[in-house]
Amino acid sequence: MEVTRQNFKDTLKTVCSAVEEADFLAIDGEFSGISDGPNVSALTNGLDTPEQRYAKLKKHSMDFLLFQFGLCTFKYDQEKSKYIIKPFNFYVFPKPFNRTSPDLKFICQSSSIDFLASQGFDFNKVFCNGIPYLNQDEEVQLREQSEERRNQQANGVGTPSFISPSSKGPAHVPEEHKDFINRVIGKVEALLTNSEKTLDLEPCTGFQRKLIYQTLNWKFSKGLHVETVETEKKERYIQVIKVDDEERKRREQQKREREQEELNDAVGFSRVIHAISKSGKLVVGHNMLLDVMHTIHQFYCPLPEDLQDFKEVTMCVFPRLLDTKLMASTQPFKEMITNTSLAELEKQVKEAPFKSPQVETAEGFHSYDTAQEQLHEAGYDAYITGLCFISMANYLGSFLTPPKAYISAHSKVVEPFFNKLFLMRIIDIPYLNLTGPDLQPKRDHVLFVTFPKEWKTSDLYQLFSAFGNIQVSWLDDTSAFVSLSQTDQVQIAVNTSRYAESYRIQTYAEYIKGKQQDKEKLGQTPKSWGEDGWLKPHYTSASTAATFGYHNPPPEDEGSPEGNDAEGTVPWQQAPAVHGRKGQKKKKQQKPKGVF
Amino acid sequence: MEVTRQNFKDTLKTVCSAVEEADFLAIDGEFSGISDGPNVSALTNGLDTPEQRYAKLKKHSMDFLLFQFGLCTFKYDQEKSKYIIKPFNFYVFPKPFNRTSPDLKFICQSSSIDFLASQGFDFNKVFCNGIPYLNQDEEVQLREQSEERRNQQANGVGTPSFISPSSKGPAHVPEEHKDFINRVIGKVEALLTNSEKTLDLEPCTGFQRKLIYQTLNWKFSKGLHVETVETEKKERYIQVIKVDDEERKRREQQKREREQEELNDAVGFSRVIHAISKSGKLVVGHNMLLDVMHTIHQFYCPLPEDLQDFKEVTMCVFPRLLDTKLMASTQPFKEMITNTSLAELEKQVKEAPFKSPQVETAEGFHSYDTAQEQLHEAGYDAYITGLCFISMANYLGSFLTPPKAYISAHSKVVEPFFNKLFLMRIIDIPYLNLTGPDLQPKRDHVLFVTFPKEWKTSDLYQLFSAFGNIQVSWLDDTSAFVSLSQTDQVQIAVNTSRYAESYRIQTYAEYIKGKQQDKEKLGQTPKSWGEDGWLKPHYTSASTAATFGYHNPPPEDEGSPEGNDAEGTVPWQQAPAVHGRKGQKKKKQQKPKGVF
Repeated sequence: MEVTRQNFKDTLKTVCSAVEEADFLAIDGEFSGISDGPNVSALTNGLDTPEQRYAKLKKHSMDFLLFQFGLCTFKYDQEKSKYIIKPFNFYVFPKPFNRTSPDLKFICQSSSIDFLASQGFDFNKVFCNGIPYLNQDEEVQLREQSEERRNQQANGVGTPSFISPSSKGPAHVPEEHKDFINRVIGKVEALLTNSEKTLDLEPCTGFQRKLIYQTLNWKFSKGLHVETVETEKKERYIQVIKVDDEERKRREQQKREREQEELNDAVGFSRVIHAISKSGKLVVGHNMLLDVMHTIHQFYCPLPEDLQDFKEVTMCVFPRLLDTKLMASTQPFKEMITNTSLAELEKQVKEAPFKSPQVETAEGFHSYDTAQEQLHEAGYDAYITGLCFISMANYLGSFLTPPKAYISAHSKVVEPFFNKLFLMRIIDIPYLNLTGPDLQPKRDHVLFVTFPKEWKTSDLYQLFSAFGNIQVSWLDDTSAFVSLSQTDQVQIAVNTSRYAESYRIQTYAEYIKGKQQDKEKLGQTPKSWGEDGWLKPHYTSASTAATFGYHNPPPEDEGSPEGNDAEGTVPWQQAPAVHGRKGQKKKKQQKPKGVF
Repeated sequence: MEVTRQNFKDTLKTVCSAVEEADFLAIDGEFSGISDGPNVSALTNGLDTPEQRYAKLKKHSMDFLLFQFGLCTFKYDQEKSKYIIKPFNFYVFPKPFNRTSPDLKFICQSSSIDFLASQGFDFNKVFCNGIPYLNQDEEVQLREQSEERRNQQANGVGTPSFISPSSKGPAHVPEEHKDFINRVIGKVEALLTNSEKTLDLEPCTGFQRKLIYQTLNWKFSKGLHVETVETEKKERYIQVIKVDDEERKRREQQKREREQEELNDAVGFSRVIHAISKSGKLVVGHNMLLDVMHTIHQFYCPLPEDLQDFKEVTMCVFPRLLDTKLMASTQPFKEMITNTSLAELEKQVKEAPFKSPQVETAEGFHSYDTAQEQLHEAGYDAYITGLCFISMANYLGSFLTPPKAYISAHSKVVEPFFNKLFLMRIIDIPYLNLTGPDLQPKRDHVLFVTFPKEWKTSDLYQLFSAFGNIQVSWLDDTSAFVSLSQTDQVQIAVNTSRYAESYRIQTYAEYIKGKQQDKEKLGQTPKSWGEDGWLKPHYTSASTAATFGYHNPPPEDEGSPEGNDAEGTVPWQQAPAVHGRKGQKKKKQQKPKGVF
């Protein structure tokens, strides 16, 4: 079901009850871009720590707009032995609520926009008919403002910037407005004696309207209802209505209700996220870290600085998450699924040993056909993400004694996958652990190298040519991680580099120690190494330890604006394009001398 | 005529000949936003210097996208005594040309987008079908890259980051690619002996393709044409074709031509601007400073730091500009035209003493009807801007002896208005003078006040309450210009403030001197005051001096994303909304004591 500003109000109940009755939910977001800084391969360095990755995504991805949100609810029908699904495709846009509400700016990345355009994305639905939203601060602020304005109008008091010190007395009317206000008083006095019921004053500025409210409240404390009305041309003017006490109260009550409804409309799409959150249902996504970050950032609160705080906020908003990309790249699926991109995964879980789940689209909902791919429409992506989850979960059921064909979202069997979000392209940390500390590999074959900004990947290959195969992961213009194939070469490299002038080499441990010292200076506590080089995850289900181990990143990623690179090469083969081009233009001044 | 990526190539000739034959051109742009920093009333401070205004617009407006460009050409037909017009409405979008071309990011401001949406703007035409473009640097870079790549492929040389030191010898194939390359060699050897003409290799990475080019060039220097081809799925693979020398040359020539055409396509919409520029025709716009800045920024070069350099670049790109908003707010029009917004101006110049010009839409072009306003479509806005210019110019002809009913764009009568761009809301500097120094009013009734960031407009009113009517122009959170009504109060205020702790007052002259000293430190020369408080404009046509004098800003501005505020209040009545709201939440710590 497509949901825009036009039908949102009528649909909200349907959405909420679909969430309420569901066994689990699947979500997906489409964004206006991925990175406003480094390109994707630099944004997702293969040796990022989870803290670094979070900080980079927060810094470089959050100014884009999540403008399409897909939700698919899955409810298992025992009798029919099939899932009943309700897919929703929400278009979202931060339409300013009024003149004083935040005028949000967001970035568009032309490659992402162009990609979505090539998939038939309808931008008019976003920009012309997108559902508005507010985060929690904005909602509170708006409700306070509305309350304040009502009090002021009731008391005849302007906002503090305009009032005279004695706000309960007659309004202080600046000289140049005195004529105007006197004319208004004359008109209102005439209204009180003539047979008219209503007086429409001429459109005027906000400041003049404040003066009118103040003056009328002071001069005519009874018998009038005063209200700001907008013309078709969006000009604002004041309407004065002769009323008895009862009608005045009734009108004010109506006005209050209208304002409340307008406020609810402004909260808009955030109410869907609140409903999902409140339900506590399992929320499934594919490669969902960016989706989760954007959802919290846009509809709840600005993302916290610290990763640990982010984890806590996330667990409040989404108490139970499952990432199908992480599931598919973990045992026992890892060996069976060669490509974990959503489109490929969806194809693979249709084939043996998996079984396509039986699903039925609920009446009144658009029925998706997986044979006619509608990839990168958020509602469709959410739908097939749910299908992938069901197929993989049911497959796990085949290992039970006795085997089970249907595994529910609440089953113990899927618990090990809860609250672990896939980390794109990190070589040795497969997931972000939301409910405990993250894995901390020692990385004792890794060097941290700094060098002149003219250097390129080939210069690093040349510098380390004596060490055979190396892997380069760029950090920025002047530094990179270099992974050696043999750990015992690390010390040789570090020692030799002592005599180098143009570059500098540290071990990974030294690099992390430096970072932690920087952090301690800022008053944060460092984390210590586990004895085996890993910090055990807080989560200690028996099956977890067996399930999660060191594993390589999946060989193929998706090429879409959900944070994935179009090119299927591994990151260390690919010098960041920006550096590459820049390098070609510049004359190389500092060349590595191949000291090893 | 609507022009998108679909019909751009077919339309370009029509556009260029319309420009060539025209007497003058009118332009207009629509942008994705106005200000990424301060709100519009802070962006357009009433006491900005031209340098400050330029710096602010450059800093806060250039990251938005000019995504619709309107051009209307006007050619006078002597026989028919009417103008023949050709209106064009171009949709523009920086679609990335290829994987290595710049992936532009631009900002959208939700209020601007929402405004355009409410006017029926079609965003899909921009994002799905917008015409690409390159600025001059990008064009040069792309042509160089293409040249380089051709040389490399011809020589069998990869880009420097992948080649082995001896690039003319056999390719250095890394161990893990040796099998792959040997398989390719085997296939090509087979091709040379079998009856097939063409060999399609399997899709592979860019690095592998480089290795293949190098290897094949070295191993099979003759008899093969090697080319990269793309599948429907955008996977790239190499095609090897058996050819004799002649066919090889022919194919390479074809490839080169194809590449040239692709490059021209990438330059795209910039070619329209080049044609306008090259024509040297008079270009008319309404309140056109932002249009000119965006056009140069997007299609020529990043804007220079310095205003003087900007003026020089502008005169190169558009040697002759005329701003109808400036014309309408200057004598003799100033007294006759109460509202200089484009929509209102267009209405007023239809009435006596003006005459609606006779225009005819050229065959094959969409005919606009000014009775059915299509405001804020760039093509329509350009069209009515042209109409306004003609009406006002012809009105000037009525003062000639003998009176002239038709005044051409080349007439001496309109010359005084050339190359002066309207400066929004600056109280005493009506225009930016592109061909000489700007007016420099003394502003000796103006104070520069700094204060704690908790202060609001009302605090300043209170501080200066002894001085009667004042005007406040906010600069930032902690400073503002305060204009007093009487110049002789200035020294009293400055003297009294010597004893103040929380705030500080300087005269405008002191403030400017401080600014100039800052600039001198950076090695730039200061400008001296003219004797009468003005620096005479470089431009010295007899009529200019009489025409341009001190004048107040027009009372009403347009409410559209062309840089104009929706609210018609004068800037000094309006504390910036952001400050106002922030102020309300904070407890005021430092209150002014009303010392005067």
